[in-house]
Amino acid sequence: MSKEIRLNAFDMNCIGHQSPGLWTHPDDRADSYNTLEYWTDLARTLERGKFDALFLADVLGIYDIYKGSGRTALEHAVQVPVNDPLMVIPPMAMVTEHLGFGVTCALSYELPYPFARRMSTLDHLTKGRIGWNIVTGYLDSAARGMGMAQQVAHDDRYDVAEDYMQATYKLWEGSWEDGAVLRDRKGRRFADPDKIHRILHEGPHFKVDAIHLCEPSPQRTPVLFQAGASKRGRDFAARHAECVFINGPSKKVIGNIVADLRRRTAEAGRDPRDLVIFTMMTVITDTTSKGARDKYQDYLGYVSEEGALALMSGWTGVDFGAMGPDEVLRFDANANAQTSALEAFTISDPGREWTVREIARHAALGGRGPVIIGSAEEVAEEMRAWVEETDVDGFNVAYALTPGTFADIADLVVPELQTRGLFKHDYAPGTFREKLFGRGPRLEATHPAAAVRWPA
Amino acid sequence: MSKEIRLNAFDMNCIGHQSPGLWTHPDDRADSYNTLEYWTDLARTLERGKFDALFLADVLGIYDIYKGSGRTALEHAVQVPVNDPLMVIPPMAMVTEHLGFGVTCALSYELPYPFARRMSTLDHLTKGRIGWNIVTGYLDSAARGMGMAQQVAHDDRYDVAEDYMQATYKLWEGSWEDGAVLRDRKGRRFADPDKIHRILHEGPHFKVDAIHLCEPSPQRTPVLFQAGASKRGRDFAARHAECVFINGPSKKVIGNIVADLRRRTAEAGRDPRDLVIFTMMTVITDTTSKGARDKYQDYLGYVSEEGALALMSGWTGVDFGAMGPDEVLRFDANANAQTSALEAFTISDPGREWTVREIARHAALGGRGPVIIGSAEEVAEEMRAWVEETDVDGFNVAYALTPGTFADIADLVVPELQTRGLFKHDYAPGTFREKLFGRGPRLEATHPAAAVRWPA
Repeated sequence: MSKEIRLNAFDMNCIGHQSPGLWTHPDDRADSYNTLEYWTDLARTLERGKFDALFLADVLGIYDIYKGSGRTALEHAVQVPVNDPLMVIPPMAMVTEHLGFGVTCALSYELPYPFARRMSTLDHLTKGRIGWNIVTGYLDSAARGMGMAQQVAHDDRYDVAEDYMQATYKLWEGSWEDGAVLRDRKGRRFADPDKIHRILHEGPHFKVDAIHLCEPSPQRTPVLFQAGASKRGRDFAARHAECVFINGPSKKVIGNIVADLRRRTAEAGRDPRDLVIFTMMTVITDTTSKGARDKYQDYLGYVSEEGALALMSGWTGVDFGAMGPDEVLRFDANANAQTSALEAFTISDPGREWTVREIARHAALGGRGPVIIGSAEEVAEEMRAWVEETDVDGFNVAYALTPGTFADIADLVVPELQTRGLFKHDYAPGTFREKLFGRGPRLEATHPAAAVRWPA
Repeated sequence: MSKEIRLNAFDMNCIGHQSPGLWTHPDDRADSYNTLEYWTDLARTLERGKFDALFLADVLGIYDIYKGSGRTALEHAVQVPVNDPLMVIPPMAMVTEHLGFGVTCALSYELPYPFARRMSTLDHLTKGRIGWNIVTGYLDSAARGMGMAQQVAHDDRYDVAEDYMQATYKLWEGSWEDGAVLRDRKGRRFADPDKIHRILHEGPHFKVDAIHLCEPSPQRTPVLFQAGASKRGRDFAARHAECVFINGPSKKVIGNIVADLRRRTAEAGRDPRDLVIFTMMTVITDTTSKGARDKYQDYLGYVSEEGALALMSGWTGVDFGAMGPDEVLRFDANANAQTSALEAFTISDPGREWTVREIARHAALGGRGPVIIGSAEEVAEEMRAWVEETDVDGFNVAYALTPGTFADIADLVVPELQTRGLFKHDYAPGTFREKLFGRGPRLEATHPAAAVRWPA
């Protein structure tokens, strides 16, 4: 087949993920996020559609820039309440066999030693289907919950992240040699202690003097996701990530990001194709074009524009509540990293000016990525065009309604992609990493984690 | 019925929990601890036996006092490898309706803000069946994994714990008022922001300035377990705990501890009956006495005495590897808290001297608690005697083989207890707390957590 398109479903253990207000639609089930049934039904739907993975976002704070408080976010359930994402993975693993799980965990909030154990535990329980989306955290409200005055400065966060990665790589790859576990009932030896090593990590931010508490899991290091958009973020991705999640409004923007990421990956000494790049997309589809457009019109009646502004204010650091609805957006592209979300709006159509009201409408359904509305055939063709024109590998599909949007993709779009030779008919065997790259369950020798393997 | 006997199953996300070496027995399944099937099968077995809860121990380090290293623990899988205990709870909740879950989490290793979210998430997913065993951690090897030189001193740990409890109580009880969640689809309001409060905690060890990220779960604060044996630990339990896990070798020892705990609870302004006290017990049973004794003899062929000494050395801080097998144990009852495990051996029979070899044999099957061997009738009568003579409320049942020991209790002992009017025929409705106390899902007004409720 042609280049296989990869699909992640994009969700979060909360109610209004990327489409504020749509939880009020009668067909939406987002507000049952706090039940096991929501997650197991979702997982079954995704595996039916042969999605590669469920990608779970997370924040440990609230969106409180808009009008200087979290009131709007709370009233409209804009990514708050937000429950822990790890806890819903084992139940989903129970009802599926192949679906991967990419889970966001901010490394600012837990030390490498217990975190490495949590991930290894999940890799065991899922039989090698766990991925970790490495984030450094971006909300000051989260930092205050942890007893800090504010976030660590942006570039410093990547220094902390580099140190954190080294510590976790040592735990995952360098503590238990292959062959350390014997499970020898007759000989009454579980493990060979000569093959289990205390790791000694003395970094600038983290110290670890311990063995890894878990025996080696199928993948050892989880599949590594990253989503940093800044230059430091892209360099970090090029060095460490196996999957990258990007977003932008147009093929032109995405094509440039993809090319830049592949170039940086090659510079980091890795094969540029060892990076699987997903771009965010919201899909509204039906059996016919008209059906899809009708759905879209129906959905628009439920969006919360104020909720969208709360989200946009949180993402950008700009308080849209302090501006009038008809005020035209001004920004300085070189000002700081936080304006990148605004930049994404304007760069797609540089001549266009956006008012706050237009931003709100646009952001309320689909957030910052493109919204594709059409019949299953039209969506499949649009996906093909994005992949061909941008060299992206696939899509992180956000929902308008959940699980309805995902069911539509599974049942309508995926068969169209399969007909076109653009999508797998069956999952590949093995772990998440094996399914993604068609090689073994472990990281490649060119990856920095390989440098701390025993023997190093 | 007479006073109802409570039963917890005592397990840990590892292989050799309290019976080192028995994982090598052909009927033992402990070494499948890293699969979902082990845990869901266990949960079904426990619910079939109407166990009140599964109590999950945890450590974040290894037992490395014996002979000055962790080699013996690793070779015999003595509580290492040890996976994260939280991850196995949601799958067990999926296959059960009533079973409670008491999970050990050391408060030294995660800040209150993200930890409170993890617990609330579990309380949501289990529909109010979560309990938290509050531990401060006791292994230096765990502290070194976290980048510290050693544990915080024993009494200081309780100061840290008190501060931690206050922070989490505020998050669970004081952030979202009752009625804050509207879930009003028609009115398009998820929550009333006027009823959601930022908590401001400025303690000596922890600071939190944030709302709780989770909407109120069925129990809000999880059912609180504690297991501190020292005087500071018992005072902490008397103030905070709803369930206490104790252990000791004889009815006399346990009776004294129970009386002391109830006295301290009354002194803390709470009803002494608001403390449900479990004592550890290992049960080996069959349909006949002889069958049980044969099982015991069979099991003894698989124990690892060296593994038992590694465990005992870790618990006591005494390196038994530096002593000869026939050396007689000496200890000073007033020396320090770590000798309490040794004390437990000798106090039951003050005239008896123990050699290291005898300690090893005794500890290798059942750890520090009593081992009851007999027919189901005999075990039921022994349980009755323990409850009547010590005023304990029930048992934390350790396994010899898993899940075999638990299945034997469910299928053989529980019916005998029921016949005697000592055990429930059906679970009570509602949350774990409601099942335990026959009142509402929330903590009593006399509990310190109630003091931080909104309005305070």
